[in-house]
Amino acid sequence: MVLEALVAANEGSALAYGADPWTEAATVSFCELFDAPVDVAFCWGGTGANVVALQCLLRPGDAIVCPAGAHINVDECGAPERFTGAKLLDLPCPDGRLAPEQITDVLGALGDEHHVQPAVVSITQSTEYGTLYTEDQIGAICQTAHAAGLLVHVDGARIANAVAASQSSPAAMLTRTGVDVVSFGGTKNGMMYGEAVCFLTPGLADRVRFVRKMAGQLPSKMRYVSAQFDALLSDDLWLSLAGSANRSAKVLADRVRALPGVTVTQDPEVNAVFVTLERSAIAMLQDWSFFWDWDTARNEVRWMTSWATTEADIADFVAGVEAAVSSSRR
Amino acid sequence: MVLEALVAANEGSALAYGADPWTEAATVSFCELFDAPVDVAFCWGGTGANVVALQCLLRPGDAIVCPAGAHINVDECGAPERFTGAKLLDLPCPDGRLAPEQITDVLGALGDEHHVQPAVVSITQSTEYGTLYTEDQIGAICQTAHAAGLLVHVDGARIANAVAASQSSPAAMLTRTGVDVVSFGGTKNGMMYGEAVCFLTPGLADRVRFVRKMAGQLPSKMRYVSAQFDALLSDDLWLSLAGSANRSAKVLADRVRALPGVTVTQDPEVNAVFVTLERSAIAMLQDWSFFWDWDTARNEVRWMTSWATTEADIADFVAGVEAAVSSSRR
Amino acid sequence: MVLEALVAANEGSALAYGADPWTEAATVSFCELFDAPVDVAFCWGGTGANVVALQCLLRPGDAIVCPAGAHINVDECGAPERFTGAKLLDLPCPDGRLAPEQITDVLGALGDEHHVQPAVVSITQSTEYGTLYTEDQIGAICQTAHAAGLLVHVDGARIANAVAASQSSPAAMLTRTGVDVVSFGGTKNGMMYGEAVCFLTPGLADRVRFVRKMAGQLPSKMRYVSAQFDALLSDDLWLSLAGSANRSAKVLADRVRALPGVTVTQDPEVNAVFVTLERSAIAMLQDWSFFWDWDTARNEVRWMTSWATTEADIADFVAGVEAAVSSSRR
Amino acid sequence: MVLEALVAANEGSALAYGADPWTEAATVSFCELFDAPVDVAFCWGGTGANVVALQCLLRPGDAIVCPAGAHINVDECGAPERFTGAKLLDLPCPDGRLAPEQITDVLGALGDEHHVQPAVVSITQSTEYGTLYTEDQIGAICQTAHAAGLLVHVDGARIANAVAASQSSPAAMLTRTGVDVVSFGGTKNGMMYGEAVCFLTPGLADRVRFVRKMAGQLPSKMRYVSAQFDALLSDDLWLSLAGSANRSAKVLADRVRALPGVTVTQDPEVNAVFVTLERSAIAMLQDWSFFWDWDTARNEVRWMTSWATTEADIADFVAGVEAAVSSSRR
Repeated sequence: MVLEALVAANEGSALAYGADPWTEAATVSFCELFDAPVDVAFCWGGTGANVVALQCLLRPGDAIVCPAGAHINVDECGAPERFTGAKLLDLPCPDGRLAPEQITDVLGALGDEHHVQPAVVSITQSTEYGTLYTEDQIGAICQTAHAAGLLVHVDGARIANAVAASQSSPAAMLTRTGVDVVSFGGTKNGMMYGEAVCFLTPGLADRVRFVRKMAGQLPSKMRYVSAQFDALLSDDLWLSLAGSANRSAKVLADRVRALPGVTVTQDPEVNAVFVTLERSAIAMLQDWSFFWDWDTARNEVRWMTSWATTEADIADFVAGVEAAVSSSRR
Repeated sequence: MVLEALVAANEGSALAYGADPWTEAATVSFCELFDAPVDVAFCWGGTGANVVALQCLLRPGDAIVCPAGAHINVDECGAPERFTGAKLLDLPCPDGRLAPEQITDVLGALGDEHHVQPAVVSITQSTEYGTLYTEDQIGAICQTAHAAGLLVHVDGARIANAVAASQSSPAAMLTRTGVDVVSFGGTKNGMMYGEAVCFLTPGLADRVRFVRKMAGQLPSKMRYVSAQFDALLSDDLWLSLAGSANRSAKVLADRVRALPGVTVTQDPEVNAVFVTLERSAIAMLQDWSFFWDWDTARNEVRWMTSWATTEADIADFVAGVEAAVSSSRR
Repeated sequence: MVLEALVAANEGSALAYGADPWTEAATVSFCELFDAPVDVAFCWGGTGANVVALQCLLRPGDAIVCPAGAHINVDECGAPERFTGAKLLDLPCPDGRLAPEQITDVLGALGDEHHVQPAVVSITQSTEYGTLYTEDQIGAICQTAHAAGLLVHVDGARIANAVAASQSSPAAMLTRTGVDVVSFGGTKNGMMYGEAVCFLTPGLADRVRFVRKMAGQLPSKMRYVSAQFDALLSDDLWLSLAGSANRSAKVLADRVRALPGVTVTQDPEVNAVFVTLERSAIAMLQDWSFFWDWDTARNEVRWMTSWATTEADIADFVAGVEAAVSSSRR
Repeated sequence: MVLEALVAANEGSALAYGADPWTEAATVSFCELFDAPVDVAFCWGGTGANVVALQCLLRPGDAIVCPAGAHINVDECGAPERFTGAKLLDLPCPDGRLAPEQITDVLGALGDEHHVQPAVVSITQSTEYGTLYTEDQIGAICQTAHAAGLLVHVDGARIANAVAASQSSPAAMLTRTGVDVVSFGGTKNGMMYGEAVCFLTPGLADRVRFVRKMAGQLPSKMRYVSAQFDALLSDDLWLSLAGSANRSAKVLADRVRALPGVTVTQDPEVNAVFVTLERSAIAMLQDWSFFWDWDTARNEVRWMTSWATTEADIADFVAGVEAAVSSSRR
């Protein structure tokens, strides 16, 4: 359906750089979704969206506080530092979730010219470790951050999976908890490409148009991004897709849990299954199907499901795992 | 046909970040096109592609020599300076074309620690002014640049229009003239999005994968970019589309030339028509159809045609111009 | 006397990073000098001071408007672009002075996301061409800039020469004309090293402590900078030294003007003498005494005098010039 | 004696930017000291010297591996990230010393475009924790780094204290262990200001002149820096001063160790004394004499001695500590 929207947007001509009806409609949809007059900046990709969002919140000398395993810290080849010039203060968060006390711990640097100044807290929902923050936990982070003059950014590359898994809503989970800006993911939610930076706090988007262009994130034919979002946000399609991915993860976890030599290390909250299995079995499986090692020392790997994962896909994959572990145990 | 390719690429699943058959095929097509073992880095947009290409050629303290009217100098909101940290030495080029002597003029700075070091020459083909470099002119620029140790980048956002207009080929116009790297445009050539940075000189692409990711220009579902390029480069589709745009410009120029109060200021070489007409007529037309002022002082505007421009579009537009000028002359 | 101050500051121990009585005293002296509650940031060098000053005035996407011959544009190896990430919009100013109309000319970019946003006007007083802005000219620049929301920076590496030459004062020339921030030069005014960034407009210095440290411009033993300034600002020593340099330039100009083959191209307003003479004579003189070519095409060179220039120095140099020109004319 | 050198350098005039006899002489001294043809770049301050050194070793996408407590990581307000655009990969090193195995642990990122690329290892000698690397430990770090294609930088702000304490020499400790570049400290070794970046590996200094200028670290009157270094390196003055500081630390540690309520947490290897004492005693002492908290949670503070510390200074300070602890225990 997302692709159909894209084909439809291809009919006729349209003004470039966002002066088109699709972009207007998608922006209205975001305002309804967040129950707030959000400013929306459509961008190309996830790294770009994060960089644009963060830059709008930073002054020279400022630092970004984030979990050590954050995508912005480990998976963006230093893009945030390079573009914003800001340092990331990365804190150890074994399950991917930052605690408000960890923010408090770094506030001692405020006012000291030798140290970077904590200015933005960036958390990921759902986290890189497949875990979820509750609404209360996000609210507590915002309260601690705001009390000290810091702003809060949410990397929502998988925000759809988080909302679908928690029976919450963007308004309840992000707007009313006090989050300032969200990188709202499209690519991992069924789109071909495209992300949306949503500014929930008025005034923070004042410079975003210039920042986006300067970051190489302004899609000239923007309607192809916004039309996909427009389709995604209609009739809760985004939540159906994410919910399906989440369910697939649970099914996959339940199936492999039963196999000898496979340990599911945490119950999947969203669309990631973490398991340990023997090194030789991992190698055999990776030859056959791509996935990431998670923790090499522990032989832990991460399997992601998506909106496109079918029952047959799961069955095939489980059969592959079964063959690999039995072969490696012989 | 580009869209059909995109729909086809949507079938089934594929590995992310370029490890897919479409990306492999499109890369092979580029090698054939340039008649050389080019390294290709697919990117999101034109500004991003330029930034990625330039960064791969620069060391700290280096500067980019370019025409004052270059897209990288005036239309990218400072993205090159911001990302690369390099200064642009912009030189006056009334018709958009840089002359080799202008490169020589700035070489005096080489070796002086107070001045930025000219290291890359960036030219645009076809230029922002709708003009074309001949193969000999590009060859002379490369010779002058290389003799002094500088590299040459071509911003080819409209390279298709240039090749189509000149009965040349990428191999003759770019590879054999000595160009080092080309930003090969897709978006202005009929694609929904996507550009390709083509490294013609071996060794210059060593760091491009890291630079691209750091610049937020790595498309995760890269097949959607490469599949479009694959379709575009098949059966010379890219040249047909560009040729059509070029012909439309000629037709449009011929039609409006006949109108009282309209002066075509230069014969269109590619797909841009430059005309002067009265300020009030410009205003009326802009209310009705978007286009850019070119030189406000001279009442000169630029009208671009595209691969999608139809005979009917031209007829409609000419009628609009006729109405505007006759109304403004009353 | 400046050196004596430095020796005195060496006695006993003092707190680092500016928490010392010399820094406090020099700051008070600057407030008196500018007749305003200025924030002062002592820095190492001229390039660093300019970079610190400018960074405090810029937001992402902003640009600095300056004369093409500005020190920040041609003599700082791209330090402003590298550190601030901002583009310099350099405008042609044949005598080194920017006109208010030139600012107006670039304001069309405001609000257009494709273009960098003019945000700061930077002028040099006295200019790199040895010319002076009058108080009225500076006032007019500030008025035009402020009316459009831009701020004004003065690169005052030679501000002492300007004040000494014009019978003005820092308060009249800079504070009351509306200038926002000044890089107040020490090195060219007799100090061993050290510059002072003076913020005349309240609020602009909020981030300067972090910016200065991040720019590598925080002197740890700051008293050695501030003690020199303290001595310089006492009993108008800074104006005596600059006045002496200015007078030496006039004397030098008068002496060489009389020589055949030497043309003084402009009456020296401050401490720079611009002359044309034959290429062979220039070469002979440069073998003997260092100075910069100014305009190679015109055989124009720039001779600078300083606070330390003596009558004997002038006589020696004039004799050298005489020998060179007579030799080259043979 | 350093000041005397500076006064001497003030006599007569000299060419700017390092073309003077003092700079030549100091460079020769460094070559002798390192027993190698080192390239030397004199800079203003420690942060600037580190930034210049590191930038010369980095390509886009590269990262700097360093201990979490490194000065470049926590005490430079993000200057390295801001200027170089590179990420710092900071690793936990409880006693300030990096182990070769920690380098090995991060090499897995090499070649993966999503991750920054470890390219430079930066260690501090003596460390921020007052500890020393042995020659063998530095050699092992260099061997591990070089084997994987990484370069090694030593932040030698206190290299004099390290050499004085270890009966080693710069040649044995740095050149022959394989270190590539050293920030050789002057300020903490008795100079008013000035640091020297020493490139031990040929070829790495190719761009340093441009990098230094662009970083705002080129002293125009460079002779005032090099003359101080010249004096410092003559007759092993630098080692006498550092040795004196080291001895003072040992004396101070021995004296306070005897006091009730004071625990010296590690025997001073160089010029830092780490002690724990009651919070109230710390507060009283800090009201009276400046020093840094080290580990607030453990009530640990760091007291530094310097070349200028006298027996009387120590006696006074010990008396102050005695008064504070006895008062706080009442």
